[in-house]
Amino acid sequence: MQQRAWLHLLKKETQILRENNLKNLNKVSTVASIGGGPIGAGWAAHFLAKGLNVKCYLHSEDEIDDYKSLIKTAWETLEKLGINKNASIENMHIYTDLKDSLTDVDFVQESIPEILEIKQEFYSKIDLFLRPDVIIASSTSGLLISEIVKNCDTRDRAIVGHPFNPPYLLPLVEVVASNYTDKVIVDQAVNFYREFDKVPILLKKEIPGFIATRLQEALWREALHMVANEEATPEQIDLALINGPAPRMAYQGQCMAFHVACGEGGMSTNLDQFGPALKLPWTRLKAPELTQDLRDKMVNGCKEMSKGKHFLEMAKERDNAIAAILSALKNNHPNN
Amino acid sequence: MQQRAWLHLLKKETQILRENNLKNLNKVSTVASIGGGPIGAGWAAHFLAKGLNVKCYLHSEDEIDDYKSLIKTAWETLEKLGINKNASIENMHIYTDLKDSLTDVDFVQESIPEILEIKQEFYSKIDLFLRPDVIIASSTSGLLISEIVKNCDTRDRAIVGHPFNPPYLLPLVEVVASNYTDKVIVDQAVNFYREFDKVPILLKKEIPGFIATRLQEALWREALHMVANEEATPEQIDLALINGPAPRMAYQGQCMAFHVACGEGGMSTNLDQFGPALKLPWTRLKAPELTQDLRDKMVNGCKEMSKGKHFLEMAKERDNAIAAILSALKNNHPNN
Repeated sequence: MQQRAWLHLLKKETQILRENNLKNLNKVSTVASIGGGPIGAGWAAHFLAKGLNVKCYLHSEDEIDDYKSLIKTAWETLEKLGINKNASIENMHIYTDLKDSLTDVDFVQESIPEILEIKQEFYSKIDLFLRPDVIIASSTSGLLISEIVKNCDTRDRAIVGHPFNPPYLLPLVEVVASNYTDKVIVDQAVNFYREFDKVPILLKKEIPGFIATRLQEALWREALHMVANEEATPEQIDLALINGPAPRMAYQGQCMAFHVACGEGGMSTNLDQFGPALKLPWTRLKAPELTQDLRDKMVNGCKEMSKGKHFLEMAKERDNAIAAILSALKNNHPNN
Repeated sequence: MQQRAWLHLLKKETQILRENNLKNLNKVSTVASIGGGPIGAGWAAHFLAKGLNVKCYLHSEDEIDDYKSLIKTAWETLEKLGINKNASIENMHIYTDLKDSLTDVDFVQESIPEILEIKQEFYSKIDLFLRPDVIIASSTSGLLISEIVKNCDTRDRAIVGHPFNPPYLLPLVEVVASNYTDKVIVDQAVNFYREFDKVPILLKKEIPGFIATRLQEALWREALHMVANEEATPEQIDLALINGPAPRMAYQGQCMAFHVACGEGGMSTNLDQFGPALKLPWTRLKAPELTQDLRDKMVNGCKEMSKGKHFLEMAKERDNAIAAILSALKNNHPNN
């Protein structure tokens, strides 16, 4: 048989395996969590709490004690929040041999150092140890997956699954496909995270920093400018966030926060009233032009999220949530 | 007696009154809340909940019904959170005559529209109705107090007291003095807010957007850019914040979040490891140069906030707080 025919056959078999896998998500029973830092350990704790078997790969035996202590810390909180009936810390197996850690796993979550060359090397290496239908998801917070996999055979099953620290508590996973990624893999990754109680967001485009890190980074860079210019101290920045926008933002994102704050008119009123303020030096970041197209996107987006609710109802719900958050914080303040 | 001597005498008497007032903070029993919007009503609700008398000035009688409904909504949540033993909604008196609303008040919180000319006109008008020791605090979120009062007699007792919406729940008050502001007034305003359970932050410099709005605005402008460029929808932006950075930020500001996330090395490790990322296009905002001076300010600031705690202890406290916030949100989700 010719090489081309072989490849064609292999590709077809892979596709059947993947589509089959998509229909049988509950078949994922073993996950590999690669990397010994807080993100790798955090993912391991999350998967363990969901009742999965977790095979952990650490670079060196020296990392094992710290890794176990991260898992132990996470586990205490996870048990309080409620874990799956099959969940046990005994379902965790630690390896320092890469091949062993990848044998018979159904999903790979990679959290090795954020250095492009190291990631590229890793992705080109692991292909042979995995079934062709197994997804490799990278926890990278800034690198582009298309760059990571551009020269390797695994590129159609590689995807970004970027968590927020601590990954065993915060639900967000930003899912980013490259142009190489198989569409079946994209659906399967989103479904997998959702199945195990994460909130996956599938990005429309592959952009540096994805969504959450871009937003956080804009805030962070403004904070650094303010400290550099002696406009604020780190303590003032943290106090301002904790006592100001953050408790509200934990319940309402910034779009809905403005929508509900502006009463009947919602986001339209916000943009009409504060549109001119976008030209003011309220941050070092220049705003985009407030075109009709942008205005429509913002207004319609908020209208959809409102699901027909009156703003007073939403304001009441916001108040209840903020009050609950403030009470929770009061009871969990270390100085209490 | 010559005019100069008269003025001198008046100024001296004012100073004595103010200094006396500073020592007798508990004498503040009546506050004027000026302005009929959600901020004016929100401040009124806060002061009422703290057991104070509140005289409310509304521009027109047409605003009264909406105003009362805002107060009612706020009151339900405030009662749940716990109000002062003397607190009663009966301690609120609504006026549409400015002079009546300002007679015999001990503190003025101004929340009229964010239009410079209107504020300037207002400040030049109210002086005669108030004792000279009464502070006039503006809720302005963006205007400079030195601009608002530059041509009026009240300028040495005027200050910014910028709340975050909803003002009856979020504790932050950014206090900004102008070059005209009397130092006694600055201390008195900070003490007044703190006395009634707010978290005042006194800014070092008078800058547009103060601290919290600058940080929020940087994030907001990045969000608008992303929507304009079809990199994210408003819904994705809100989902990313709610499920990612925000619940953590409600407990830890961005500085301490990075400090604790980076283990033993804390902020030093963060800046050394992610310093190069400040040059990457992770947001449209260019970062400042990471000079030794900036590095020192960030590292020392976080060290002070840590109060000698080990990072594992702080990580544990963070986890407890995030878990409590997530539980609070789960129990307060409108779809429950």
